[in-house]
Amino acid sequence: MRNYAHPDLADVSIEHLLHALSDPVRLDIVRQLARNGEASCAALDGGRPKSSMSHHFRVLRSAGLVHTRIAGVQHMNTLRREEVDKRFPGLLGAVLRVAG
Amino acid sequence: MRNYAHPDLADVSIEHLLHALSDPVRLDIVRQLARNGEASCAALDGGRPKSSMSHHFRVLRSAGLVHTRIAGVQHMNTLRREEVDKRFPGLLGAVLRVAG
Repeated sequence: MRNYAHPDLADVSIEHLLHALSDPVRLDIVRQLARNGEASCAALDGGRPKSSMSHHFRVLRSAGLVHTRIAGVQHMNTLRREEVDKRFPGLLGAVLRVAG
Repeated sequence: MRNYAHPDLADVSIEHLLHALSDPVRLDIVRQLARNGEASCAALDGGRPKSSMSHHFRVLRSAGLVHTRIAGVQHMNTLRREEVDKRFPGLLGAVLRVAG
């Protein structure tokens, strides 16, 4: 299977990033990755339907928030925290503090 | 004409707030209100169509970001900065710093 595409953070607008964070499922994924580090899609789905989760991960990748690498049959996700913080200083930290 | 309804910030979720901020027109309105204080809808529309602006102001009000009062024929808008900051400490400041 092919690898996923990940945008350069320079090409991500603040509106795009905020939109990606404006959904409870996606915000929860970001919160979990920030707290626990790399995790598989399966570990993050909370029992939600696979098709809906694929959509959410796609949105998170396109906003530069999540990196997904393929490791055998698993898709492993990490938060692109350093890059996001460099592009939007203080923003993700503020969201995560408020979102718990 | 009747007054507009404004939600209690306690009833606004972070996702709702982030969604309201995830559009360039709405983010621009918030930025202008933060910088310049109260302004009429006309002063904030940047020549955009009235129907589209009505939608954006409605979204901003429903997310607890903007208060609109009717003053004769004008609709005057303010940012509910203090209330938003109390409900979501540091969030709006971080967005505005990044959004310029």
